[in-house]
Amino acid sequence: MQFVSFNNGLLGVMRGDEVVDVTELGGVDPSFWPPVGMVRFIEKFDKQSGLIRDALATRPSIPLADVRLDPPIRWPNKVVAFPANYHAHIDEMRTENGSGLISKFKASGQGFFLKANSSLSGPADPIELPALADREIHHECELGIVIGKRGRGIAEADSKDYIFGFTCLLDMVVRGKEERVMRKSYDTFCPIGPWITTADEIPDFEQILLSLKVNGEVRQTASTRDLIVSIPEMVAMSSAVMTLEPGDIIATGTPAGVGPVQHGDVLEISIEGVGSMRLPVVQSAAGDHAVWSAGKTALPV
Amino acid sequence: MQFVSFNNGLLGVMRGDEVVDVTELGGVDPSFWPPVGMVRFIEKFDKQSGLIRDALATRPSIPLADVRLDPPIRWPNKVVAFPANYHAHIDEMRTENGSGLISKFKASGQGFFLKANSSLSGPADPIELPALADREIHHECELGIVIGKRGRGIAEADSKDYIFGFTCLLDMVVRGKEERVMRKSYDTFCPIGPWITTADEIPDFEQILLSLKVNGEVRQTASTRDLIVSIPEMVAMSSAVMTLEPGDIIATGTPAGVGPVQHGDVLEISIEGVGSMRLPVVQSAAGDHAVWSAGKTALPV
Repeated sequence: MQFVSFNNGLLGVMRGDEVVDVTELGGVDPSFWPPVGMVRFIEKFDKQSGLIRDALATRPSIPLADVRLDPPIRWPNKVVAFPANYHAHIDEMRTENGSGLISKFKASGQGFFLKANSSLSGPADPIELPALADREIHHECELGIVIGKRGRGIAEADSKDYIFGFTCLLDMVVRGKEERVMRKSYDTFCPIGPWITTADEIPDFEQILLSLKVNGEVRQTASTRDLIVSIPEMVAMSSAVMTLEPGDIIATGTPAGVGPVQHGDVLEISIEGVGSMRLPVVQSAAGDHAVWSAGKTALPV
Repeated sequence: MQFVSFNNGLLGVMRGDEVVDVTELGGVDPSFWPPVGMVRFIEKFDKQSGLIRDALATRPSIPLADVRLDPPIRWPNKVVAFPANYHAHIDEMRTENGSGLISKFKASGQGFFLKANSSLSGPADPIELPALADREIHHECELGIVIGKRGRGIAEADSKDYIFGFTCLLDMVVRGKEERVMRKSYDTFCPIGPWITTADEIPDFEQILLSLKVNGEVRQTASTRDLIVSIPEMVAMSSAVMTLEPGDIIATGTPAGVGPVQHGDVLEISIEGVGSMRLPVVQSAAGDHAVWSAGKTALPV
């Protein structure tokens, strides 16, 4: 099944190209703040799967073209991200800049970081480039894991029980030497969508193909079989440190082919069996601050 | 005023040493999941201040000793953290380890990172040390800022309008070279509390005194006048990048005097005009994972 958020707070399940409204299964009004309807829906999913099947079988639906898709999840507990998780991407970053662009430790020896919830955006939202002169802003095409159940210390062998589904995810980043988390947490720097595809629709987690086109040209392609830290290992590693909550998102790292984007570009991410989305890039006037000026001089303390 | 969360989901306002229950002003049942009652309470604070004053004047109260305090905020949009924000702390870290323990850029040139929401714990919760052999786990005593209003691109001059209040905050960390965010995001690694003291009770944001005792001995003392990036600058810088939401927390950085903690220690953080809390440290069996083993060999890619 595919689950969407749409029209600013409604929840839906896809039936072909149409959306069936199941907002009431989130248990909050669409206007409820903070926007945790989908997180609640995921938490209650096991108990409500019969109701969802009933809705799919009996309710009317709305053509996808007639709704505006929100980010499927807007206010999770956290967005976890694994860096440098494909060998080919590590190699390209090392070639481009021997020092500073990427840590000298790969994901398996380095761990993970976080992106801000507020960086989440959806399939109908443009990616807004902050107004930073002389800085490259790169696309990183990634598979997003959506957690379905609360857990700490999850064994790799049990990880499937905790994975609700998958979504397309772009991990946008300002290149530079400042805190990576800040460079990756600008508003709209974590587009997800177009929906969450439940894990039961993906026969083999080690054979998921992903790709990114920029203005129609393929720039990134990969298979999850080339991940350094595998999907079960990512669930185990992050839950060793932190309690994972329903609705948590794990960005699994980007393959080779990252590159700069600019105003007017169109990014198209596709993940086989999961979905695809097409996102315009626009220049924003916001985002500059003192650190970027300090970075130009790059004075050590 | 001081606002508390207590007894697993209730909201209260302090009257002297007693708690007045104002749970209904959060607009959700105490059992509502995810636990966003206080975040909602803060968002509606301006509109409900009359109701809070009425409650303070007329309702019965419960002795603080008869309740169990929760983390005042449990599920914000994000927990922002500023690194290396007091010169004396930068100096001590450089002395201890010339390379790796701390970035060569100070906060004003480096920006900020995030801690996981799931690392938040409260004044009644022990700090749980992960089971990592050969790793030091340090206390960092910090002032926590609580955001009151949604905003992006907030000017320093306007920052006071966006600050709801302050809280005591401990930024616990496993020392090492792995991702700092991971090393700082263990469950219970971000104790906050005992309450949120509203900003109007703090006459001068540049004269807030903080201190930390370990087993009764003073280890860290500072004044916010010695911050490198000031409180208004932190609000401006983080909101240049990200939309800040009501309930967001900013950890403002730690002064000199950090050091290792171990099972059986008792940490006591005090912030003048804000509050104080006393936290036991206990050893946990959880938390080890593959990265820590990899870290022992520390092989570059």
